[in-house]
Amino acid sequence: MNSSYQSLKEECYEANMQLDALGLVIYTFGNVSAVDRSKGAFAIKPSGVPYEDLRPEDIVIVDYDNHIIEGTMRPSSDTKTHAFLYKNWEGIGGIAHTHATYSVAWAQAQRDIPIFGTTHADHLTADIPCAPPMRDALIEGNYEHNTGIQILECFEEKGLDPMEVEMVLLGNHGPFSWGKNAAKAVYNSKVLEEVARMAYLTLQINPNAPRLKDALIKKHFERKHGANAYYGQ
Amino acid sequence: MNSSYQSLKEECYEANMQLDALGLVIYTFGNVSAVDRSKGAFAIKPSGVPYEDLRPEDIVIVDYDNHIIEGTMRPSSDTKTHAFLYKNWEGIGGIAHTHATYSVAWAQAQRDIPIFGTTHADHLTADIPCAPPMRDALIEGNYEHNTGIQILECFEEKGLDPMEVEMVLLGNHGPFSWGKNAAKAVYNSKVLEEVARMAYLTLQINPNAPRLKDALIKKHFERKHGANAYYGQ
Amino acid sequence: MNSSYQSLKEECYEANMQLDALGLVIYTFGNVSAVDRSKGAFAIKPSGVPYEDLRPEDIVIVDYDNHIIEGTMRPSSDTKTHAFLYKNWEGIGGIAHTHATYSVAWAQAQRDIPIFGTTHADHLTADIPCAPPMRDALIEGNYEHNTGIQILECFEEKGLDPMEVEMVLLGNHGPFSWGKNAAKAVYNSKVLEEVARMAYLTLQINPNAPRLKDALIKKHFERKHGANAYYGQ
Amino acid sequence: MNSSYQSLKEECYEANMQLDALGLVIYTFGNVSAVDRSKGAFAIKPSGVPYEDLRPEDIVIVDYDNHIIEGTMRPSSDTKTHAFLYKNWEGIGGIAHTHATYSVAWAQAQRDIPIFGTTHADHLTADIPCAPPMRDALIEGNYEHNTGIQILECFEEKGLDPMEVEMVLLGNHGPFSWGKNAAKAVYNSKVLEEVARMAYLTLQINPNAPRLKDALIKKHFERKHGANAYYGQ
Repeated sequence: MNSSYQSLKEECYEANMQLDALGLVIYTFGNVSAVDRSKGAFAIKPSGVPYEDLRPEDIVIVDYDNHIIEGTMRPSSDTKTHAFLYKNWEGIGGIAHTHATYSVAWAQAQRDIPIFGTTHADHLTADIPCAPPMRDALIEGNYEHNTGIQILECFEEKGLDPMEVEMVLLGNHGPFSWGKNAAKAVYNSKVLEEVARMAYLTLQINPNAPRLKDALIKKHFERKHGANAYYGQ
Repeated sequence: MNSSYQSLKEECYEANMQLDALGLVIYTFGNVSAVDRSKGAFAIKPSGVPYEDLRPEDIVIVDYDNHIIEGTMRPSSDTKTHAFLYKNWEGIGGIAHTHATYSVAWAQAQRDIPIFGTTHADHLTADIPCAPPMRDALIEGNYEHNTGIQILECFEEKGLDPMEVEMVLLGNHGPFSWGKNAAKAVYNSKVLEEVARMAYLTLQINPNAPRLKDALIKKHFERKHGANAYYGQ
Repeated sequence: MNSSYQSLKEECYEANMQLDALGLVIYTFGNVSAVDRSKGAFAIKPSGVPYEDLRPEDIVIVDYDNHIIEGTMRPSSDTKTHAFLYKNWEGIGGIAHTHATYSVAWAQAQRDIPIFGTTHADHLTADIPCAPPMRDALIEGNYEHNTGIQILECFEEKGLDPMEVEMVLLGNHGPFSWGKNAAKAVYNSKVLEEVARMAYLTLQINPNAPRLKDALIKKHFERKHGANAYYGQ
Repeated sequence: MNSSYQSLKEECYEANMQLDALGLVIYTFGNVSAVDRSKGAFAIKPSGVPYEDLRPEDIVIVDYDNHIIEGTMRPSSDTKTHAFLYKNWEGIGGIAHTHATYSVAWAQAQRDIPIFGTTHADHLTADIPCAPPMRDALIEGNYEHNTGIQILECFEEKGLDPMEVEMVLLGNHGPFSWGKNAAKAVYNSKVLEEVARMAYLTLQINPNAPRLKDALIKKHFERKHGANAYYGQ
């Protein structure tokens, strides 16, 4: 059967399978979505389906107000968080959510991940923010929708630009990451997990490890992202 | 040769092989059983057989009083613990026991695993209990039978319901988990190991990490298990 | 070409390859030997040969006084340690040496590994001994031979029986293990590595974790090794 | 098409693929080069190309002054560091750079890795040096060239010989290693990562772990490298 969302579903499927291949999830502990801005809709993993059983045709198509456009399965229980972020951050093309071990450990510790080195600085120039756990009133309400609010408020309070800082930890929960497309969102999940692990080990070896000096933060970021970027082809 | 326990043996065999595939055991460090309530008997791994040599026909059938009903091999040395739990907790359908690394570390540390995040809360709303090491009189007696008593007493003292908290650590020993069937018991072993690892890392990063707030504990558990559950298909 | 040591070489080869398959070595960081007591000779890995290149015919046959009996390659640089242990401990049939990560970490920390749980107690009832680094006079002399002396003296001073405690850490160096044959020596290397990892994590979670109580030590060991052992087939 | 650099490109390609096979890199987080001293040029990985897409013909040939001699792709962004080291250290034949986890953690902690055991001493007799982060003036200038200067100055200040100490950590950044050829440089990256992991664990178990005694440092190094070396074939 043909669907005008066929390629979007496949992009979403491939990105979800990458979560598993990269060791970022066990069982159903994660989900990725991919948006089609021209159609105002996004593709997302169905809820509770193990990766080994997942097929491209299982992917669900949803609009920014959480109406199902196509698909017979129930979408991820985190769908409303994805929808809220797509609605508010028009520049992003894909979102990934995992319960990857080291990212979750920092989220549970309720600590921003300090920028300790160039691995971190090659991707973002700020500490990786950890949003505080939600207020009780928000939890009891529209929980997943409010998770999106929680992320947005965190970025506003800290003055962060989601096009530059493509990842966040939710206190007591875990990481969300995003990017220009679903594959980049997954890439950022993997980078976050590795940076989280390195930062953890750094503090174990030297609890007083200094943050990266400003000149190096700036230099490494501009190597990849600046006007005179000279990394990559 | 036909056996009326054929499918039970296969369920038990598959679940035991999963322990190995999930990286929860080395050598013979674990065992899984599956019960048939209509027959009052359960299938369990034979003792000391490496996973690569295990075959469905090696599985032993035992009743709740530890009498062998079918099978030529000696059942797991932990059989009496399984039998005791099946006899006392009528709602459970499978039991798994491992020496998985992080679960054992918490058991050896003799600490309950605090509920630090939603990964934990998606599965149970209490700290994962660590039963104290057995009293000397019980050790010298019917050891494996008394291990079952130890688990039961721990749940009674802490007021826990085994249908809601499907896992326990035995102090100085390791984890037992259970569920509606053998596959779910193994799933719970894997979840326990991952939650144990996350909690360990959380405390390394922030020794004063707060427990998950009550509103979030309640919310996440009800997403999966409440009357209005909306997780999964 | 036929050799009366053909099956001994193959036993030795298989055990060496297991070191690699079990993740206990990288590059050439380990060696296993297998003895034929009736011939007064043992088979050992050649020095500096990567596991992917190793073939059964490369294995070298050596007597207890380090004379090469058969083989064109130079035997492991640790051969004299193996020879010394075979000469002095007549009950052992195989020896393994690795630089496995957690075992080495305890050896470098110069700490005995405390018996914290039943995983440990299922294999030995004592703390895993860490022999002190060698005296300078011994280092400058016949180093590998003296490594054997160091192990023997450690066992004598602590009153340990090598037939009951089949493993040791050498301070600042790493683990040696042994057993009734080469496969069992490798098994003990793997168990030691896992117990070393569990003990490390236990102390991270609870620096005051208590040793296993005596009644449990005795019980678990006798389950496997006592006169009324009931573990295995 | 024939190239007089064909075999150099293949050596470089194989060594880069080893980085990936050994688990030392994710995505594009590393690069290896191989030099042809007779031609005054070296082969290096192109920038930003994932390992699964890399082909021998993608390798770029560069001289010691960073002029591209052959190749259609942009060379690694770290090329100037490689060029500087080849120009100044005439004895080395290959260089590897990674962001391997434990090596980076020590670099971010800005600590030399103490020589705690024989695994370390089998490869070098000094602590593994950690060069301080670069001065701001150098960062703003010719950054990758100045990274080479930073390494050279560190070795001069500490009185280290790059033919004996074939690895370094750059503070806040990560490891560089080298050797007689590209394969040996990669080997040294793997050894460094394993030694970094062992040293980390050693300090977790015993924060006061003593350095290896001098007699053992000397002995182990001479077993492999001394005039009477007796390790290997």
